[in-house]
Amino acid sequence: MTKLTRSWVESANSANHPFPLNNLPYGVFSTAKEDARCGVAIGNEILDVRALEEAGIVSFGGAFAHPTWNDFMALGSAEWSRLRQELTALLSEASTQANTLRPHLVSQKDATLHMPFNVAEFTDFYAGRNHAVNVGTMFRGAENALPPNWLHIPIGYNGRASSVVVSGTPVHRPWGQLKGPNDETPRFAPCERFDLELEIGAIVGTPSNNPLSVDEADAAIFGYVLLNDWSARDIQAWEYQPLGPFQSKATATTISPWIVTKAALEHFRIDTPPREVALLDHLKDTGPMLYDIDLAVSLAPQGQKTSVLSHTNMRELYYSAAQQLAHHSSSGCPMRTGDLLGSGTISGSEKHEFGSLLEMSWGGKEPVTLDNGETRTFLQDGDTLTLTGKARGDGYTIGFGDCVGTILPAHERKD
Amino acid sequence: MTKLTRSWVESANSANHPFPLNNLPYGVFSTAKEDARCGVAIGNEILDVRALEEAGIVSFGGAFAHPTWNDFMALGSAEWSRLRQELTALLSEASTQANTLRPHLVSQKDATLHMPFNVAEFTDFYAGRNHAVNVGTMFRGAENALPPNWLHIPIGYNGRASSVVVSGTPVHRPWGQLKGPNDETPRFAPCERFDLELEIGAIVGTPSNNPLSVDEADAAIFGYVLLNDWSARDIQAWEYQPLGPFQSKATATTISPWIVTKAALEHFRIDTPPREVALLDHLKDTGPMLYDIDLAVSLAPQGQKTSVLSHTNMRELYYSAAQQLAHHSSSGCPMRTGDLLGSGTISGSEKHEFGSLLEMSWGGKEPVTLDNGETRTFLQDGDTLTLTGKARGDGYTIGFGDCVGTILPAHERKD
Repeated sequence: MTKLTRSWVESANSANHPFPLNNLPYGVFSTAKEDARCGVAIGNEILDVRALEEAGIVSFGGAFAHPTWNDFMALGSAEWSRLRQELTALLSEASTQANTLRPHLVSQKDATLHMPFNVAEFTDFYAGRNHAVNVGTMFRGAENALPPNWLHIPIGYNGRASSVVVSGTPVHRPWGQLKGPNDETPRFAPCERFDLELEIGAIVGTPSNNPLSVDEADAAIFGYVLLNDWSARDIQAWEYQPLGPFQSKATATTISPWIVTKAALEHFRIDTPPREVALLDHLKDTGPMLYDIDLAVSLAPQGQKTSVLSHTNMRELYYSAAQQLAHHSSSGCPMRTGDLLGSGTISGSEKHEFGSLLEMSWGGKEPVTLDNGETRTFLQDGDTLTLTGKARGDGYTIGFGDCVGTILPAHERKD
Repeated sequence: MTKLTRSWVESANSANHPFPLNNLPYGVFSTAKEDARCGVAIGNEILDVRALEEAGIVSFGGAFAHPTWNDFMALGSAEWSRLRQELTALLSEASTQANTLRPHLVSQKDATLHMPFNVAEFTDFYAGRNHAVNVGTMFRGAENALPPNWLHIPIGYNGRASSVVVSGTPVHRPWGQLKGPNDETPRFAPCERFDLELEIGAIVGTPSNNPLSVDEADAAIFGYVLLNDWSARDIQAWEYQPLGPFQSKATATTISPWIVTKAALEHFRIDTPPREVALLDHLKDTGPMLYDIDLAVSLAPQGQKTSVLSHTNMRELYYSAAQQLAHHSSSGCPMRTGDLLGSGTISGSEKHEFGSLLEMSWGGKEPVTLDNGETRTFLQDGDTLTLTGKARGDGYTIGFGDCVGTILPAHERKD
């Protein structure tokens, strides 16, 4: 594992800072004076990459002209490497260009963060084994918990790209059709079992029109974000048979504001868990393609302190994003720059390691107690949910930037 | 019902021509000399709308600058009406501008048709009752044929926008994981049960960020296309539990090349079928929102004549596109200009009225005999499938333009 690479931006040199020079995550920001543009986080600052190209300090054919990283992602992996190398040199302690760059630094506290990329399409997988077993047990009983296909293919469904929002965007409790097991007929009402899902999202950088091998899929991935796939469990229970989740997952999906590149995570690669059943050749592991990333979920009731609800790690996934993408393309499905693949909920094996309230409260039967004595089965209006992610290196941390959302009451409706 | 509106483009005045002045469907075309651009079909010709705006004959703020109708759709319904009125006046028999327009007509036989709009996201519904009962009977048995939610909400799933192609694009047989009921383990192989689905697609013109009423949803729809949702039944059977169809529907979805506007279909509105169970208020019918459109499926084996496989009508749908869109937005899901909503497979009650081979061959057990004596359970390489749609008025026809696709062999793979 490499060590901290020191920067002339002093705040980036702390062992616990999420944005050391080893990270260099990509986002989109605006300030009171400047409109939205591409930037790179370094310590407590953001380096304005659009300004950097306008000043001729870097040159990527105008890829930063729009406030999104899609154009840059579309340039391909050789250019991804070149930008990272150039930024590393420019920002390193040994750089002679600190004075040239300083005017293009903006303090993060003065910046508003926006969606870092345009989501082409959003797919959500179901690759956490503990989560699949837990939910399967609750919905279908212990004997049918893991669907027969689950150990053979990374099960997933197409989500709704239009509903993906950046951290900090409030989320209104959705309306939907609800029908409890003892209700005679359904009713249309605000969701009563609104939940989070702790996930990591992989971003496709390189488009493709043909099936990808696992290695090709890994190479096509640009980076990762934290992802909270807000889920209306009562809407889901009524709608999901036979075509899968639809409106239960369409209100919002929140992502963290910084794209942590695959390059920044390179030293944290780990293997998927041992296989109970061998995968078919086209999905077989060809190297370590998960990452050792510590994850946490916390909840703050309105105006109150935060309680940490759970801790887990990306290693709990049974399939890597590369395997998911290989499967996703197997039918010939064209993949595009900006496609977002959610990992599926990541849960450890213990209650304090679960990635959703559905699991923590075991379907609402075992309320979770917060630090202030309040309890939760599902989310209440005013609750603020925060996901965090950290890969811990030798004297440095690769952070993701928090993935935050506050629940607002359902909109009023007339009908 | 109105009568034929006569045009100075003589070919448009035939009672059976699909593109009379009453229709004016919107497409994107190119010729040997001209790059792709927006056009309107009239009789055997296409009126070059981009050239029309460049010549100052119509003025829509440059909405035709790109080879897609999305920019125009985003202008909103008042502009949709204005263009239709202006084109109707310009092309009517009484127009004094025939000589001005003639240089902007291109013969359809010299034109290549392209995707008429950029699909923002693709959603596929399941609103044909006969189809739902047929498939449910085959997959889950007669007693569980119609899922409990089916009479209460228009069941749908998110599809894959990147896989939507225009009529004429060949479709390679997909690979996928297959596991028959008697197989011990799955295998990765070309699909053996490749099928069509006869559908109508509704195109969202007006974006929204909040739930829509059924009336608002109807107003947001710009137009309709024929839609063939190619389906790999063996991949589907193995993958669809518990999160719905995924790779089985991701190879391709073919649409007809001309957007038939809601305005052109206005005189063909019909009611949805009687309700067995009352819908909740937010989904209730508020007027006739289906259309009386005759539909047909035909199949031509490679180098052979076409056999008509089935005839049906859009009236077989249980939910209108407006009801589907109202449901789609009910969770707060943002809808965007260019969203495409597939109706679900449209089947009549008899075998020769079914909209898929899965139903016609009853799961492959009852082969369909073609006119040349060959039989089919599912599609063979080289087969060309054609969907047609016609609304029949008093002395005129509103046609859709054929929705055609030819099956090519699966790609070769190494693994």
